[in-house]
Amino acid sequence: MSEYSIFTSESVSEGHPDKIADQISDAVLDALLARDKNARVACETLVKTGIAVIAGEISTSAWVDLEDLVRKVITDIGYTSSDVGYDGETCGVLNVIGKQSVDIAQGVDRVKPEDQGAGDQGLMFGYATDETPTFMPSPIYYAHRLVERQAEARKSGLLPWLRPDAKSQVTFRYDEDGKPCAIDAVVLSTQHSPEVSQEDLREAVMELIVHHVLPAELLHANTKFHINPTGKFVIGGPVGDCGLTGRKIIVDTYGGSARHGGGAFSGKDPSKVDRSAAYAGRYVAKNIVAAGLAKRCEIQVSYAIGVAEPTSVAINTFGTGKVSDEKLIELVRENFDLRPYAISKVLDLLHPMYQLTAAYGHFGREPFEHTYKWIDSNGHEQTETFTAFPWEKTDKAETLRAQAGL
Amino acid sequence: MSEYSIFTSESVSEGHPDKIADQISDAVLDALLARDKNARVACETLVKTGIAVIAGEISTSAWVDLEDLVRKVITDIGYTSSDVGYDGETCGVLNVIGKQSVDIAQGVDRVKPEDQGAGDQGLMFGYATDETPTFMPSPIYYAHRLVERQAEARKSGLLPWLRPDAKSQVTFRYDEDGKPCAIDAVVLSTQHSPEVSQEDLREAVMELIVHHVLPAELLHANTKFHINPTGKFVIGGPVGDCGLTGRKIIVDTYGGSARHGGGAFSGKDPSKVDRSAAYAGRYVAKNIVAAGLAKRCEIQVSYAIGVAEPTSVAINTFGTGKVSDEKLIELVRENFDLRPYAISKVLDLLHPMYQLTAAYGHFGREPFEHTYKWIDSNGHEQTETFTAFPWEKTDKAETLRAQAGL
Ligand SMILES: C[S@@+](CC[C@H](N)C(=O)[O-])C[C@H]1O[C@@H](n2cnc3c(N)ncnc32)[C@H](O)[C@@H]1O
Ligand SMILES: C[S@@+](CC[C@H](N)C(=O)[O-])C[C@H]1O[C@@H](n2cnc3c(N)ncnc32)[C@H](O)[C@@H]1O
Repeated sequence: MSEYSIFTSESVSEGHPDKIADQISDAVLDALLARDKNARVACETLVKTGIAVIAGEISTSAWVDLEDLVRKVITDIGYTSSDVGYDGETCGVLNVIGKQSVDIAQGVDRVKPEDQGAGDQGLMFGYATDETPTFMPSPIYYAHRLVERQAEARKSGLLPWLRPDAKSQVTFRYDEDGKPCAIDAVVLSTQHSPEVSQEDLREAVMELIVHHVLPAELLHANTKFHINPTGKFVIGGPVGDCGLTGRKIIVDTYGGSARHGGGAFSGKDPSKVDRSAAYAGRYVAKNIVAAGLAKRCEIQVSYAIGVAEPTSVAINTFGTGKVSDEKLIELVRENFDLRPYAISKVLDLLHPMYQLTAAYGHFGREPFEHTYKWIDSNGHEQTETFTAFPWEKTDKAETLRAQAGL
Repeated sequence: MSEYSIFTSESVSEGHPDKIADQISDAVLDALLARDKNARVACETLVKTGIAVIAGEISTSAWVDLEDLVRKVITDIGYTSSDVGYDGETCGVLNVIGKQSVDIAQGVDRVKPEDQGAGDQGLMFGYATDETPTFMPSPIYYAHRLVERQAEARKSGLLPWLRPDAKSQVTFRYDEDGKPCAIDAVVLSTQHSPEVSQEDLREAVMELIVHHVLPAELLHANTKFHINPTGKFVIGGPVGDCGLTGRKIIVDTYGGSARHGGGAFSGKDPSKVDRSAAYAGRYVAKNIVAAGLAKRCEIQVSYAIGVAEPTSVAINTFGTGKVSDEKLIELVRENFDLRPYAISKVLDLLHPMYQLTAAYGHFGREPFEHTYKWIDSNGHEQTETFTAFPWEKTDKAETLRAQAGL
């Protein structure tokens, strides 16, 4: 369902410079959370030709070789030589990390853990729509699939001339009932090695990425395809474009279909409501839609720094609600504790699950069991197993449905 | 008008770390645009304890002492000594700026200027509502006024213990007709010198900032005020929190009341549609509402990199339109040329107006004549006079009204 008759969303691959930065920030967070559940982490990253800067505020008892970690994230993505413009093994790594301000810490820490204050003020939204089985809007859903497929075709060797940096964009048409019915335009730009011709690139990308991902019945005679429209994309990654953490917040969420409070996710531990309350918002909205209480649901929450209770909770069902918005708010208040400590506990967020979220979207992905491995200070391998993407569970839907009397 | 019965927005002062970064990025852009109208600028900034990093892609024939410029922006904001935690005169300034990728440039540059390709793909929104005389939503309007007043009280010496870093947040209640009717909660955190007691701070902030700005008739017995809720905010600026360009994109726009495409503004010249098309979107939406064609209007545009024509243009009037959305789109197509070159020309964007936009919002501010001064390479003062905030003009409203037959 959409109020728009056409709507466009974009995504970027894991090799996009802003996404490199997000993945580094979240790799730092994961490494610290694995070793210290009380770590307070706010890690920002900047990547540009020949350099990666990590900065922010971290208070922890853990020790991690951050330089090594940064290099590993970059090389794992595929930036491994000056041939592709950027090399994780040889780039400069600059560390400007300080500690969390004691003035902030005293506002957040409380004697009773459930009173833990929000790590910052701010507003966050959660959203869900019944328009796809993942409860995500179609444009962002397909935009992600395109760049995910680009990475797959690159890593599997299917298209060996692909390089890590890529962007996608999909324009959907919605019918009079607000249902997605056709794709009017597709943009896909992918970095490539100099050897491949534009014709070969276009043909292969159309066949093995675009048509592989987009259902034929959504395409039509007038669908416009812009494949590498600049005509050349050899220079890419941090050489072509400086990357920063938190600069793909619409790609990370609902592709613009829902509102956004402005807070970034990557590099932030769950005491930061920018992240945890946005995850909780998705959990609430998805359970409401999964329960059949609305076809679309957007929830806004807001916080004051140092205060546990939200300063506001509001809901919008775009006229699709089966019960009144007041009733919905009541159901939310009864079934979801939106204080920061409670969110973290109910969703079990204090696990190193964050690098997994740092590319291809934080929402619309199936929860799964994940095992994180790390080496402790004695050189022993340690493991931690948990559910990744726990905010995607619909375990409250039945209760909500029953309480709503549906 | 709002679909929400309560809605919260936030703002931050010019001393907030992310805003320091935005102002530096835009000061760099202005300095280059004044000297070279063909400059291609993408300037990102990171500020953290003792350091400012500028990075990005710049192609220009102009020469500017960037180190000096960065220092001046920081000291002008008020970070002038290690006493306040950060000192523009002595911090490190790191420059990691490269040139625009020739692969991108060849896609953007065209023989005929009007064919100039978009500097990137992406989606952008414009928004306007008749709920305030500025055509801005009430929550963000008042959130900006609070932090603007904080800066005024600091700079005028009215409250000499105020320091540059501050954040505000306002929760509005909307009545059944979607009109803003009351303020339910206010959060204001301001950095301060260690001398002032929390009681004195609270009292002065309430009287000289909160009550000075917020109309008494909007406050009520149960309005909650959270003034410096952490209890202490001496450490502030880049010491308390790393700042990055483009990390306050919701503060910069509509406070979350409208959708967002995700692109940042600061540091980007008008060939980047993230900025120019979002400005054009505001211009379109504001003229539609000013013409009385709708009470609220949100427009989405999208682009493919290297292509001049938008890949999509879509409109949403939330059921408040006086004419159909199809008719509105037709009027938009007839009256607004949304190709990048045309936007820049019609709005006259190639002037050093950007640092003015980098704090307290890019929208909802009256256009005004501004004179920018700079020293050329011969040591002579040069000036450039232009209209700042040209996208706020309502000069198309009458035509739109007439063409709609209203
Ligand atoms: C176009 S760049 C942003 C503009 C850039 N900062 C500048 O100053 O020109 C944004 C993204 O586009 C992609 N990109 C880079 N070079 C490209 C090219 N030659 N053709 C198409 N897309 C490209 C990369 O994913 C990059 O991160
Ligand atoms: C709370 S900080 C973000 C969290 C931070 N990165 C950390 O790791 O704790 C966000 C903003 O809050 C404001 N702030 C900083 N210290 C504060 C304090 N002691 N009380 C209230 N607000 C504060 C500043 O404007 C700062 O930029």
